Amino acid sequence: MDQQQLFIKMVLGNWDLQISRLEKMFSSFTDDELQLQVAPGKNRVIYLLGHFVAYHDMLGESLGLAERKYQHLDNDFLKSADNIGASIPDAAYLRQAWTDVHEKLTTLFNGLEAGEWFKRHQLVSEEDFAKDLTRNRLNMIINRAAHIAYHAGQIKLCNK
Amino acid sequence: MDQQQLFIKMVLGNWDLQISRLEKMFSSFTDDELQLQVAPGKNRVIYLLGHFVAYHDMLGESLGLAERKYQHLDNDFLKSADNIGASIPDAAYLRQAWTDVHEKLTTLFNGLEAGEWFKRHQLVSEEDFAKDLTRNRLNMIINRAAHIAYHAGQIKLCNK
Repeated sequence: MDQQQLFIKMVLGNWDLQISRLEKMFSSFTDDELQLQVAPGKNRVIYLLGHFVAYHDMLGESLGLAERKYQHLDNDFLKSADNIGASIPDAAYLRQAWTDVHEKLTTLFNGLEAGEWFKRHQLVSEEDFAKDLTRNRLNMIINRAAHIAYHAGQIKLCNK
Repeated sequence: MDQQQLFIKMVLGNWDLQISRLEKMFSSFTDDELQLQVAPGKNRVIYLLGHFVAYHDMLGESLGLAERKYQHLDNDFLKSADNIGASIPDAAYLRQAWTDVHEKLTTLFNGLEAGEWFKRHQLVSEEDFAKDLTRNRLNMIINRAAHIAYHAGQIKLCNK
């Protein structure tokens, strides 16, 4: 295994770990329990489920690897805070969308050649990337994995 | 910059980002506010402050780079859950210890040659490391950065 492949394995290994932990958390909640708030007055777990579907659907696009499929969730789960009064997709839909989004990401990640991971992502211009080569696709995975851990810590607080 | 150096910069950049966000959070709490729980019946913020001091003090040792200095905090902040009734070091002590531990880590990290980051950490045997070269020092930083994000997400929930 060369160095690039070793780096990629380290980063994707952490991504997979964070995803699998979060997925286990969501699976441990019944549909009713998904309505619980992580703390009084804070996001419901179902909001965070939808938040990850929308954000990780966007990840494929941000990496420059895929078109979006769940953009219709952005208003409820990315652009708005959780709103208990609002009508949002139900748990069954969001669980299926979670599976769909992450299976697609896994396929994309497995199919990417090592060198492609070190090219720029779509949220940085070619000019800025030339000045800072750390702003590559693999770094976006490092960043998004931390975002998973951030919300996983919150979901862990639910009393159910 | 060669590939190893680029990758190290990516990982340490994320570590620095997570540390600076968490440090800003702790700084935003008065000593009284550090007694707040992140959610009803859950860890106090001061517990998490002490938890990070002890755990990141241990990180130097786990990396095989430094002796421990704050092992006396392990009972209160690593081996025990938060216990409001227990006598623990005060906020001023823990804040100073946080600074001390992280300044030391920064010095250690800056002084480490690139190739050293890809050697094994102390929590894996030579035999197991030979089978899986991802279990190196740098991977421990990736893991610990996720641990920071996990608790930062919880502290963010405090109403103060």
